Amino acid sequence: MSSIQEYTLFYWPGIPGRGEFVRLCFEAAKVPYNDVSEVPELLKLLSNKSVAGIAAPHFAVPVLGIHEDQDKWHYISQTPAMLSFLAPRLGLLGDAAGLSGLERDVAVAQIQQLCATALDLNTETHDTHHPISVSSFYEDQQDEAKKRAADFRKNRLPKFLRLFEVALCENGAGADKKDGAKRRMWGTKTSVADLTVWQVLDGLLFAFPKCMQRLKDGGEYKHVFELHDEIKDELKEYLQSERRRPYSNGIFRHYPELDDE
Amino acid sequence: MSSIQEYTLFYWPGIPGRGEFVRLCFEAAKVPYNDVSEVPELLKLLSNKSVAGIAAPHFAVPVLGIHEDQDKWHYISQTPAMLSFLAPRLGLLGDAAGLSGLERDVAVAQIQQLCATALDLNTETHDTHHPISVSSFYEDQQDEAKKRAADFRKNRLPKFLRLFEVALCENGAGADKKDGAKRRMWGTKTSVADLTVWQVLDGLLFAFPKCMQRLKDGGEYKHVFELHDEIKDELKEYLQSERRRPYSNGIFRHYPELDDE
Repeated sequence: MSSIQEYTLFYWPGIPGRGEFVRLCFEAAKVPYNDVSEVPELLKLLSNKSVAGIAAPHFAVPVLGIHEDQDKWHYISQTPAMLSFLAPRLGLLGDAAGLSGLERDVAVAQIQQLCATALDLNTETHDTHHPISVSSFYEDQQDEAKKRAADFRKNRLPKFLRLFEVALCENGAGADKKDGAKRRMWGTKTSVADLTVWQVLDGLLFAFPKCMQRLKDGGEYKHVFELHDEIKDELKEYLQSERRRPYSNGIFRHYPELDDE
Repeated sequence: MSSIQEYTLFYWPGIPGRGEFVRLCFEAAKVPYNDVSEVPELLKLLSNKSVAGIAAPHFAVPVLGIHEDQDKWHYISQTPAMLSFLAPRLGLLGDAAGLSGLERDVAVAQIQQLCATALDLNTETHDTHHPISVSSFYEDQQDEAKKRAADFRKNRLPKFLRLFEVALCENGAGADKKDGAKRRMWGTKTSVADLTVWQVLDGLLFAFPKCMQRLKDGGEYKHVFELHDEIKDELKEYLQSERRRPYSNGIFRHYPELDDE
């Protein structure tokens, strides 16, 4: 499809973080990639200087490196931009891959729309433990975090899960589900939107286990939790490998005082 | 280029808000569009039911309606998805429009990357006055807002402006500036990234006038403020029209207690 020789994902060591959204694309597609987490290399990229091929500066990692040939490297950052770039190349456009013209462009935009919504939930999850300042410790904003987390559990999280449930059920290709076809965020095949939603759900199950159990038991988001199980199964080999990093002190943190009582 | 008959922007009445990023694309390109802000119509779209052509549910407005023919409507939401969809159709890919193959795909992704960074700044600006809960009043989270705004002015805002300055100066096509060519976020022609950065800067000048004046006077972000002036001039006819809505109680709010002293 193109002259790409090699993909490299640059991200902090030790945590899944935002790098995981990109990593999952490669893992789901079973396309090889280099996984670079040496801090000096990351800082060099983030300095936005002296790296051939940089045409737009990076605010943060993850950064995707695209090796075209010996001398030619390209770099892209911002999770949604990397997902949009990779989806057609890695076969992660779901049912949109079979469309053409305006229909395809709309479908691609709608898949990007669903990814953006999942990534908004990711950001709001992060902000539950850092509502005031990303550069300060959690312990220094714990009172505010408790307030924000309470609002998140009560208002925001259910609103997002409701949207994912609607995507899986009521509208779009999901509603035309045929016997044996999968129920996915956009149609019946796994796309980058399913992987993105899955990673956020998975992180939430780690960070807010009681709240998520309550929402699951309520039954309103049945297909969302089924999607989590099904994609987990599709990613099984990767998730059991050492390449999958454990949650700890990244976006998804388990602070019992921020979860349901 | 396609069979599109008509574009419609659905957004709340009275404020520029997130709808403005989409509106600016049409205005800059001088492409006609319908601007719908009747609340019942918006609520019908956001109900994610009973609207033909919805294939992915919407978390919030703005929503872009694309009228293909009498019976066929498509809908896209999420600002970054709408910008990605519209940029090639409205001639807002800047210098990337002249590229092809991998080079073009990378450039398109980098423009999306720059838009995403500007939209992150937009979200962080919003969160200065609503750090705890979007569904509560500012007055009920004013103490937390003061803390968050202080961190924003000191750490976050300068970091974003620095990135835009680098994009305009040190890397990419901007560095190859020829006599008479414009210095833009990606190259020498106005793209959707310039419009997006411009709108956030413009809102910040309204919301944080003292802080922005201090940052301007410091001289470190010279080209960023020049970009603001130049794009303002490009949009002059629109900005003087009644179609441009005033800032008030949307994303960009002027609370003197959140600005520099």
